[in-house]
Amino acid sequence: MKNYRMLVQYDGTRYNGWQKQGDTDNTIQEKLETILCRMTGTDQVDVHGAGRTDAGVHARGQVAQFRIDTELSTGDIRDYLNTYLPDDIGVLSVDVAAPRFHSRFNATQKTYLYRIGKDKSYHVFDRKYIYEYRGEPLDVAAMKMATIQLRGEHDFKSFCGNPRMRKSTVRKLFAIHIRENEHEIDIEFIGEGFLQYMVRILVGTLIEVGEGRRDPRSMDALLEARDRKLAGPTAPACGLTLMEVRYN
Amino acid sequence: MKNYRMLVQYDGTRYNGWQKQGDTDNTIQEKLETILCRMTGTDQVDVHGAGRTDAGVHARGQVAQFRIDTELSTGDIRDYLNTYLPDDIGVLSVDVAAPRFHSRFNATQKTYLYRIGKDKSYHVFDRKYIYEYRGEPLDVAAMKMATIQLRGEHDFKSFCGNPRMRKSTVRKLFAIHIRENEHEIDIEFIGEGFLQYMVRILVGTLIEVGEGRRDPRSMDALLEARDRKLAGPTAPACGLTLMEVRYN
Repeated sequence: MKNYRMLVQYDGTRYNGWQKQGDTDNTIQEKLETILCRMTGTDQVDVHGAGRTDAGVHARGQVAQFRIDTELSTGDIRDYLNTYLPDDIGVLSVDVAAPRFHSRFNATQKTYLYRIGKDKSYHVFDRKYIYEYRGEPLDVAAMKMATIQLRGEHDFKSFCGNPRMRKSTVRKLFAIHIRENEHEIDIEFIGEGFLQYMVRILVGTLIEVGEGRRDPRSMDALLEARDRKLAGPTAPACGLTLMEVRYN
Repeated sequence: MKNYRMLVQYDGTRYNGWQKQGDTDNTIQEKLETILCRMTGTDQVDVHGAGRTDAGVHARGQVAQFRIDTELSTGDIRDYLNTYLPDDIGVLSVDVAAPRFHSRFNATQKTYLYRIGKDKSYHVFDRKYIYEYRGEPLDVAAMKMATIQLRGEHDFKSFCGNPRMRKSTVRKLFAIHIRENEHEIDIEFIGEGFLQYMVRILVGTLIEVGEGRRDPRSMDALLEARDRKLAGPTAPACGLTLMEVRYN
């Protein structure tokens, strides 16, 4: 069996996220596996995504990997997948990967983008990919200040949405970039890896900073507390997109 | 009553076009008029669009005009509209217009963009705004050659979708620009005004040229024939967007 990697993008709006969750689910992973099973005439193909995006989260640069036996070229595999995939999932490329390559365990850097809209009338065409914020204007300078204490390697337990998480909650955040224009605020997170809901809880917390309800210099204390209840709410899924996954 | 003009954008996917067509319709014009009636507490407000886009056609720069009596500022009118409009219609601005300004009769230039997709996997996020062409690669050089004979002032009766059109079918096309990249072919039409379905019939005809089924030098003869049956099919509505309307 050869090992393949593929670059996938999807509009997550109508899916229960990336990862399979049972027999009656509706996930990106399941859609891809079903087509690869049909293509190879086998009962089981396991497709591993680099980032297990939650329900409603989008991807422009998801990397996934699978092992199959086939005579088809990588271009033919790609075309086969795109022929049978719905319009809201697209496989941009398929390549032969090193035999031991694993899309999740070997990933060294992931980039997520969270888009906050300031005026829905400007987002008619990408309204499904933006969280329209309806409050008073956010203090972006304060939000930027808060990111300083969040950068780097920390225990992000306060920002972990899984209360039963047994493994380490230490993660390394290489950078958080906040860009603002007239109509939206974009927050880009570049890290080694992310905990469940971590980006969205970070965004929910940064929005509270932007609202003046939370001190931008309180992030150190929040990290130290290791208590999810002390962080902000989980921002809506629709604003989040997995942009890129890198490997060494 | 003061005369107002507004800049409107909409995703036309789920509408029966711009123009009201009866009591039970679902049009952009009707949505805007209903809200303006509520805002002013009157029974009738007439909203005139510069371009009467067909069912399924989108707009990024529609200009519309209406006369109302109100104490509200233009910013308040805009905010009121956006509060009650669905997410797929947005009013970008409202301004006081000259008393005799008419959005359709005074328009001197309109720009339409038609997007032809070459690979749907690349258009997951704008799949509703592109016509995914599934045939063999189009000969874009031939399509460009065909546009030479189409430019200028002509009787476009062969490209008019309304068989009962009684008024002049002469129109002036200032320019047709065809741009191609790896994933799509964009055709921009800049003209004084357009007949019903004219842009889409021009696109359907240009696609036949790109398929090698029609001589790029046959456009003069097609214009002279003044016969809709001799032109190509009407390209799908979803690929078309009204981009800009200009006034002197």
